[in-house]
Amino acid sequence: MAEGKKLSGAGLRGQVAGKTALSTVGVSGSGLTYRGYDVKDLAENCEFEEVAHLILKGALPTQAELDAYKTKLKGLRSLPQALKEVLERIPADAHPMDVIRTGCSMLGNLEQEDTTVMGEFPTQEECIDRMLACFPSIICYWYRFSHDGVRVDENTDDDSIGAHFLHMLRGEKPNELHERVMNVSLILYAEHEFNASTFTARVCASTLSDIHSCITGAIGTLRGPLHGGANEAAMDMIEKFTSADHAEQEMMGMLERKEKIMGFGHAIYSTSDPRNAIIKEWSEKLAADVGDTVLYPVSVRCEEVMWREKKLFCNADFFHASAYHFMGIPTKLFTPIFVMSRLTGWAGHVMEQRADNRIIRPSADYTGEDLRSVTPIAERG
Amino acid sequence: MAEGKKLSGAGLRGQVAGKTALSTVGVSGSGLTYRGYDVKDLAENCEFEEVAHLILKGALPTQAELDAYKTKLKGLRSLPQALKEVLERIPADAHPMDVIRTGCSMLGNLEQEDTTVMGEFPTQEECIDRMLACFPSIICYWYRFSHDGVRVDENTDDDSIGAHFLHMLRGEKPNELHERVMNVSLILYAEHEFNASTFTARVCASTLSDIHSCITGAIGTLRGPLHGGANEAAMDMIEKFTSADHAEQEMMGMLERKEKIMGFGHAIYSTSDPRNAIIKEWSEKLAADVGDTVLYPVSVRCEEVMWREKKLFCNADFFHASAYHFMGIPTKLFTPIFVMSRLTGWAGHVMEQRADNRIIRPSADYTGEDLRSVTPIAERG
Repeated sequence: MAEGKKLSGAGLRGQVAGKTALSTVGVSGSGLTYRGYDVKDLAENCEFEEVAHLILKGALPTQAELDAYKTKLKGLRSLPQALKEVLERIPADAHPMDVIRTGCSMLGNLEQEDTTVMGEFPTQEECIDRMLACFPSIICYWYRFSHDGVRVDENTDDDSIGAHFLHMLRGEKPNELHERVMNVSLILYAEHEFNASTFTARVCASTLSDIHSCITGAIGTLRGPLHGGANEAAMDMIEKFTSADHAEQEMMGMLERKEKIMGFGHAIYSTSDPRNAIIKEWSEKLAADVGDTVLYPVSVRCEEVMWREKKLFCNADFFHASAYHFMGIPTKLFTPIFVMSRLTGWAGHVMEQRADNRIIRPSADYTGEDLRSVTPIAERG
Repeated sequence: MAEGKKLSGAGLRGQVAGKTALSTVGVSGSGLTYRGYDVKDLAENCEFEEVAHLILKGALPTQAELDAYKTKLKGLRSLPQALKEVLERIPADAHPMDVIRTGCSMLGNLEQEDTTVMGEFPTQEECIDRMLACFPSIICYWYRFSHDGVRVDENTDDDSIGAHFLHMLRGEKPNELHERVMNVSLILYAEHEFNASTFTARVCASTLSDIHSCITGAIGTLRGPLHGGANEAAMDMIEKFTSADHAEQEMMGMLERKEKIMGFGHAIYSTSDPRNAIIKEWSEKLAADVGDTVLYPVSVRCEEVMWREKKLFCNADFFHASAYHFMGIPTKLFTPIFVMSRLTGWAGHVMEQRADNRIIRPSADYTGEDLRSVTPIAERG
């Protein structure tokens, strides 16, 4: 083992592992920024495709650039036949994150990134745009085929990625409110510095591997319940509550029994998650739109109880649960939507890592056996 | 961005990122040890399945345990029909590492690890043994189908994983020498502390994701030419040389032109790679066996030139190239063999991470734009 400097925190917490120009997380006064723009400003004034352009191409687009980018992405929604045939072989009870992980990996076989010259990646932006356009198709093609027996048409003419997704999933074009909420949601989840899935993508990129490997690895990491999936866990909880009072009663019991409650607190933010107020507002609008009198009040009460009892705030995931539910999205597809969005951040980090690379290869503290000799097998036991 | 302690080296080099009892790399006097045993001792006295048992179950097996383990693994070689159908849809010009990455990911859909209770993994050892047994089947099934149009029978009765692989690949049982070399090779590549692919597996495991996600991510990371693949690059180079003198002449030119030469030096070892002498000896035996008078002498000369000119030593990969070649293994399958072996180390690290987990989430130095406001799209440009 090489001599290593001891790190104070487990899990590299608070340890600088590289540089980024993509985002800041938890800096006092601004909360979360993408390339210098506050996420609140972006969520209020932009479509998701503008933010994807910002992260992937370095700047917010002009109207002409945005139109061209959206037209390009529209043209990349179709899935290769072999990929569809793979998705048709994945059962309905598979984990949707395993499906999108496999879909991404399969795409890498069929449309391999050009890595002929070591360290040069001339087609990376093409591959990334392709994934951005067709991940919603992968998710919905599998979901509709395995659950409804339908081979969904992935060539919709919807204007945005969010509308395209809802259209394939639900079989009809979404209304303006739903399309807007999808845009906001995809913006909020797009990028978040060196979180575990992004760090996975950077470690993979640091060996000069291809973009599909980087993104496949990141999807697998996001699958973990300590990372993605908190919005699904939040949904599982709140849908059991029949009223705000019932929610308070049950949550007090869960706190008493020290049960884990998902959707609250954050590894980096200490006083609030800047994304919460934004998605909460949209969840309230959706509740009014569908005439909900239970789930939104339940969610608000959960927020009040957790703050009052534990000084824990809602993170981005908590009000996403009710918002997605009001739009008729099945709970098991919540984390794949996270993938559709975070793909932009992952890909931005991969390109950044590639542009100034050194292989990421830390050391370990050895806690095992001292040197010993192999005992002949007949003498073991 | 959270306040972070500055790390001195890029790529976390020399920085302790966690604990392990699995191996030591580069400790003076022992070189490379797995759970305290010198890799040389293991390569001389053990079969690969004994070393897999050591890494995965914690101790070298007794004869009865080894027999039971090998019988178990033999019974797990068969591939699910849906996985075969997926492999049949991957073209012959795909990258073999993309194939095994996709095969592993697909397996996760069909034989999902039980992660029902967060943080508990009651079936992890079953899933790992299954992968250990069937990864050679995945590689050979795709290779033989896409290249030869043959649906290979993956239910061989060969005694070892190495023989099973060679049998499926070449259509006949290997001789004793070849089976022995496969054992040695799989032992040498089995484990190597916090290298980039293993670190990827641990980052993924730290979100409490499933084992197939961890291994899929690790495969994608090993795919990079700075990590796995060096033995393929070494083969591409040495097979161009027609004699030892020709090799010397060409290498001097490459050094003059400062071209990158793969298979030499190492991020952690500073004076030699303990695995080199071992595989070199077996390569020499194979050369004698096949009557080679070119490739082995060429390889030896390359080693001499690099040491004389650059004080760079052969790493584990360099003599693996000629050894694999003498056994008739196509160059493009060299890195997938690495996967068949390193799977043991990856899986050992995943289990270790899970047993004492904190999510791996470092911070970044921010180098980007200061806070700014979104310009309305009509005013951009």
